Amino acid sequence: MPPFFAVGSVSAVRAVWNGPIAVVEDPRDAHAHFAEALPIVRIKSDTGVVPGRPDLEGARNSLDALELAVGLTRSGAASGLVTGPVSKAQLYAIGFVHPGQTEFVAERCGIASELYAMMLAGPTLKVIPVTTHVPLRNVPDLLTVEGIVAKGRAAIRGLQRQFGIAEPRLAVAGLNPHAGEDGTLGREEIDLIVPAVERLREDGYRVSGPHPPDIMFNDRRRSTYDAALCMYHDQALIPLKTLHFDEGINLTLGLPIVRTSPDHGTAFDIAGRDQADPRAMIAAIRTAAECAARLGAA
Amino acid sequence: MPPFFAVGSVSAVRAVWNGPIAVVEDPRDAHAHFAEALPIVRIKSDTGVVPGRPDLEGARNSLDALELAVGLTRSGAASGLVTGPVSKAQLYAIGFVHPGQTEFVAERCGIASELYAMMLAGPTLKVIPVTTHVPLRNVPDLLTVEGIVAKGRAAIRGLQRQFGIAEPRLAVAGLNPHAGEDGTLGREEIDLIVPAVERLREDGYRVSGPHPPDIMFNDRRRSTYDAALCMYHDQALIPLKTLHFDEGINLTLGLPIVRTSPDHGTAFDIAGRDQADPRAMIAAIRTAAECAARLGAA
Repeated sequence: MPPFFAVGSVSAVRAVWNGPIAVVEDPRDAHAHFAEALPIVRIKSDTGVVPGRPDLEGARNSLDALELAVGLTRSGAASGLVTGPVSKAQLYAIGFVHPGQTEFVAERCGIASELYAMMLAGPTLKVIPVTTHVPLRNVPDLLTVEGIVAKGRAAIRGLQRQFGIAEPRLAVAGLNPHAGEDGTLGREEIDLIVPAVERLREDGYRVSGPHPPDIMFNDRRRSTYDAALCMYHDQALIPLKTLHFDEGINLTLGLPIVRTSPDHGTAFDIAGRDQADPRAMIAAIRTAAECAARLGAA
Repeated sequence: MPPFFAVGSVSAVRAVWNGPIAVVEDPRDAHAHFAEALPIVRIKSDTGVVPGRPDLEGARNSLDALELAVGLTRSGAASGLVTGPVSKAQLYAIGFVHPGQTEFVAERCGIASELYAMMLAGPTLKVIPVTTHVPLRNVPDLLTVEGIVAKGRAAIRGLQRQFGIAEPRLAVAGLNPHAGEDGTLGREEIDLIVPAVERLREDGYRVSGPHPPDIMFNDRRRSTYDAALCMYHDQALIPLKTLHFDEGINLTLGLPIVRTSPDHGTAFDIAGRDQADPRAMIAAIRTAAECAARLGAA
């Protein structure tokens, strides 16, 4: 495992880590402690939290930790940022104005929303949704050629820079059953997705599709592309979580920093009970380190 | 393998079967030949077809074969019907007015569309889509409480009668990401799906949901239900084909006869080349025989 340190409240870290900890003032000291203890860079007003009981105090601690961790990564004191799950309801209650941590991190990095992309990744599948947390009803009208092209470019550049794939193969999904079947089952493929695919090909990228969504995620097909560009949340998340429920991670591509997170929620009901499956968090930390190493070498 | 016979054009059967065949006049003679040859009940005007070359003549042969096979099953000469894939474009060109074979079979059985349901089944997952071949844009407005309840009932009764599950557990999917997250990501769960689930529970059925669509198809979750009721084509087909691409079959529940088919297309590009994977067709035949035996015993 690459060396890492926790950022936040000591009591919050104690709730999820049974081993020894070492509170460090300066992230540069973390390295020296990592072999024997989990180093923690503590937030300024560490008021303590009760695991499994979401409240405003806990939300303030989370937000302080996120702000500090973004700052440390932006400044180069850390080579990558891994965020844990948060209670969005509590964050909103203390005045957090972003839909989620991703948007907060992007804003702190000064990156506009069309320039970054959320990638969900498991051992055999990487997906990038063009639209994310919106009602399914709104999806068709939110799709534009420009939007699909922008997410496609962010995806491809992310695969190049963070995953070291020189010429990534991007498979673009259709929106409708059978990818619209020549317009008889919907026109978004003809009007939006085909032109977006052509635009990306004109950029010189290896892009295929629009593919019928139901047949593009089986074993054989997954081996023909490096990532799938999906039109909506569940088109991306259903195959990913069906295949890789316990190991899925979330990466933000297109930022000046590396940022990953495990693709699961807070699970307050099992907080502090030693029942959580750590695989996604381990994968998130490991992937952040690998991506950071590639970015550093580039 | 249970005994079965082919219905249709001899040249079409020869294109997909290398072994000996036995043309029989009466289906009752099929049994006697099954051990040594594939029995064929030939359509009246068997004009012959060229494998891999869809044309109007081939479509007429397909339609004649379908009509004859439905008749044989309706009359009890066969205990179940297995249909192969067809070229819909060619069928439409000869004046076929139904969206697909399922609707044709249902119409010949005198069953209205809200009373039957399409089930897609693989070794570890059964799904029933409430809406099927329609543009994604139209899905939200096509959903009604009554429609969801009707498909749910057809699904449950089908699991009871054809699969011998006394008290089937039906998991109902939400429509929106995270099943709408209490209305913030869409209202169809609150307005339509929750009331439909309650109605089905009032019938005494074991029904759960609406579930967040992305997390309901992983290994652990699949073991908690017998079938999933899905709101649209790809919500049902993406998990099924991601998991069971080569073994998926299609069953029509709610008909007076057993009807199955392999869940794949015509693949004209590999017709007659010995490259087709027969697993889905074998599963379709085997499942039809098993369902017919249960229906006969009931």
